[in-house]
Amino acid sequence: MTPEQIVEQLQTLVESDKVKTDPESLAFYGTDWTKVYEPKPLAIVFPKSIEQVQAIVRFANENQLALVPSGGRTGLSAGAVAANGEIVVAFDYMNKVENFNPIDRTVVCGPGVITEQLQQYAEEQGLFYPVDFASSGSSQIAGNIATNAGGIKVIRYGMTRNWVAGLKVVTGTGELMDLNKGLVKNNTGYDFRHLFIGSEGTLGFIVEATMQLTRPPKDLTVLVLGVPEFSAIMDVLKAFQEKIDLTAFEFFSEKALTKVVEHSDVQRPFESRTDYYALIEFECINEQVADQAMEVFEYCMEQGWVEDGVMSQSLAQLESLWRCREDISETIAKWTPYKNDIAVSVSHVPAFLTEVEAVVNQHYPDFEIIWFGHIGDGNVHLNILKPDNLAKEAFFEKCSEVSNWVFEIVQKYQGSVSAEHGVGMTKRDYLTYTRSEEEINLMKGIKKVFDPNGIMNPGKVIN
Amino acid sequence: MTPEQIVEQLQTLVESDKVKTDPESLAFYGTDWTKVYEPKPLAIVFPKSIEQVQAIVRFANENQLALVPSGGRTGLSAGAVAANGEIVVAFDYMNKVENFNPIDRTVVCGPGVITEQLQQYAEEQGLFYPVDFASSGSSQIAGNIATNAGGIKVIRYGMTRNWVAGLKVVTGTGELMDLNKGLVKNNTGYDFRHLFIGSEGTLGFIVEATMQLTRPPKDLTVLVLGVPEFSAIMDVLKAFQEKIDLTAFEFFSEKALTKVVEHSDVQRPFESRTDYYALIEFECINEQVADQAMEVFEYCMEQGWVEDGVMSQSLAQLESLWRCREDISETIAKWTPYKNDIAVSVSHVPAFLTEVEAVVNQHYPDFEIIWFGHIGDGNVHLNILKPDNLAKEAFFEKCSEVSNWVFEIVQKYQGSVSAEHGVGMTKRDYLTYTRSEEEINLMKGIKKVFDPNGIMNPGKVIN
Repeated sequence: MTPEQIVEQLQTLVESDKVKTDPESLAFYGTDWTKVYEPKPLAIVFPKSIEQVQAIVRFANENQLALVPSGGRTGLSAGAVAANGEIVVAFDYMNKVENFNPIDRTVVCGPGVITEQLQQYAEEQGLFYPVDFASSGSSQIAGNIATNAGGIKVIRYGMTRNWVAGLKVVTGTGELMDLNKGLVKNNTGYDFRHLFIGSEGTLGFIVEATMQLTRPPKDLTVLVLGVPEFSAIMDVLKAFQEKIDLTAFEFFSEKALTKVVEHSDVQRPFESRTDYYALIEFECINEQVADQAMEVFEYCMEQGWVEDGVMSQSLAQLESLWRCREDISETIAKWTPYKNDIAVSVSHVPAFLTEVEAVVNQHYPDFEIIWFGHIGDGNVHLNILKPDNLAKEAFFEKCSEVSNWVFEIVQKYQGSVSAEHGVGMTKRDYLTYTRSEEEINLMKGIKKVFDPNGIMNPGKVIN
Repeated sequence: MTPEQIVEQLQTLVESDKVKTDPESLAFYGTDWTKVYEPKPLAIVFPKSIEQVQAIVRFANENQLALVPSGGRTGLSAGAVAANGEIVVAFDYMNKVENFNPIDRTVVCGPGVITEQLQQYAEEQGLFYPVDFASSGSSQIAGNIATNAGGIKVIRYGMTRNWVAGLKVVTGTGELMDLNKGLVKNNTGYDFRHLFIGSEGTLGFIVEATMQLTRPPKDLTVLVLGVPEFSAIMDVLKAFQEKIDLTAFEFFSEKALTKVVEHSDVQRPFESRTDYYALIEFECINEQVADQAMEVFEYCMEQGWVEDGVMSQSLAQLESLWRCREDISETIAKWTPYKNDIAVSVSHVPAFLTEVEAVVNQHYPDFEIIWFGHIGDGNVHLNILKPDNLAKEAFFEKCSEVSNWVFEIVQKYQGSVSAEHGVGMTKRDYLTYTRSEEEINLMKGIKKVFDPNGIMNPGKVIN
């Protein structure tokens, strides 16, 4: 079948103006935030219903045509990149939030619902959708589910996985499956819902999701603490978790804070400087909790773990303290940083960081390392800034060497080469550092069951 | 290979006295709490290490011998029954709790660790393992995981699934997989850990589990409310959930309470009688929460949803109020009840109950129906008592007819034919009421990937 014939056929499967082949659309819908691969899709197709998705998949399956799902394309692992003449299936028009159920606290979302749209909808119902991250203004819910998106509140609310009560998916043969149907308890064989969560579109496409909502947090309060020794952050975490239910436990380094303060209107949380900072958030529902937090804070000072600290007294102060942590990524973007999203067990984080620092400093003493991340769940973001005198290509070449060292240390600590960004294409060849050969072979076997002709997002996660 | 040769071979794979073939052992280890199938295992084998489990599975795989995993055998769906000459693999000697990590709050359990043993271990560390149910004194952790056990605190803590941070499994070819390794964040392809949870030993055997612990609940308090109309229970649930984080929301009928009060030393919660009762538990951490609970209680009285109520003022009173609910199962056992463990969405429960009652009453007006269950998660336990004048066989024959009606209503409400007891053999032929033919076919495909020769717990869940 020629490309023209394919496009013609696609036009019969969706509304005829919902197939795009103009260069702008191909470039726009063919890539994600990684921007390392040249987008080269054959066409972009915009279904408006589940039936249209099924028709597209059946057509592709019969003709062995590769499909790539497209949500908000905010991914950082090239999971939604179409670089090999694939047909991109964009879910932008399947974006309704409906069937809110106040007793079950569930709501049914089209795959193209924007994360923020769901958050706002929940708020309008007096409820809360707790998965939140930098790209929530443009990421789509099916993409969140397909990559099991994490974010800043995982310590309390878990990953996207925890909020999916039901899932409609179209498999690689065009079959529609209605998984779990919004039930809380359902032990009837293999839970395919969980298999699809985090499968990055390689087993099938998510065409509807029933999302769980919860009550909104009350009186959130933030503490920022100056911690001279990284390892003490673990003691601080333990001390707080014993007394208070935390909603976030983040960390960042003095180097990160310096950059943010120098390049924005963000204020330092307090005068004194320490090598590391912990940001702790909790629901300060009454004075007892506030007293408890102060007690733990003082205990941490006495132990020498913490040198200084501040507790937010208003929503405005809470927001400005959060910016010390949240503005890092955007601030350091101008140094074209090498980024790596990795995780180890929480207790392994100090040793892991020390080893990574040592190996990078040994080989590239002029590389500036910026650490920050979600310490409460073991997920650290390694960022290395490009020295001004080094060309971009040379820098990234050296960094790919760094990747190997980092992943070897990840493996040593039985960690994850992708904590929350997924595998896509950028981490596919490093998968063996976290998953065994046997596991990868079984993944291939599983893919064959759901997608016998290998048309669903081929080349992503596994080969 | 003759049975004698098989036993001889098995004796070379484990310690020689760890293979049993005496009739008592065969009868004991060959069945579970269902007791409807005649146990007929060929032998019981007790591995003491992961390597021994692998050796047994490899031997069985090479010789096409069926294996049945045996934990505490407290299951109610015949998932651990060996009725066809299978080799039972009993994990009783692999029961160590070790490698507690206070920062990660994780602990590594052998498959044979008793639920209560883990609960006590957690308590000794000042922590809490929250999955609890009637059989926790004898059920084993790998069995809990293989059936994704639920229980009485799911509304707050979720199912067993939520507490599994890592899983070592031996697949049907004897391969060992180390899944997720205790990580909180790990988005590296298909999450096989979740696939194995609830797979009832049909994909492989769980040989080690890293379990997550949490802080113990503080100052638990129970409210029992008398609710005249079942549908009002939903309004009560919603009213409480809006204001208070609940740890349990259970219900039982006046019929259930009458039986318990008549046949034990349990006291009625209060004088007045209503057709239904809600039992609500929460952490009453300070007076504000207590006041809030009283406010909601009064609101529910004003609305006419609730007629009377009592709030526990001591641990002793809390325990005695819980007995109104927890003693039901044991109390009604003397009527050889027909039992069914089903779930629908929480909001569908009232309509679902009404329909089931109507169809049973219409056909068998002399059957006494006892309802109780975990209303907060949509899981109801239907119990029908055998009329004294009806023989056991005749009763169960009529009840199997009832099952069909019940499952048709389950299907109509998109519910689950097994909320928390799993499928095993007793619900296998009803699986289609919850899972589509397509899903069941895909389950078979998945099983073939992990267990190509079909030796792992054959005949359970799927055929």
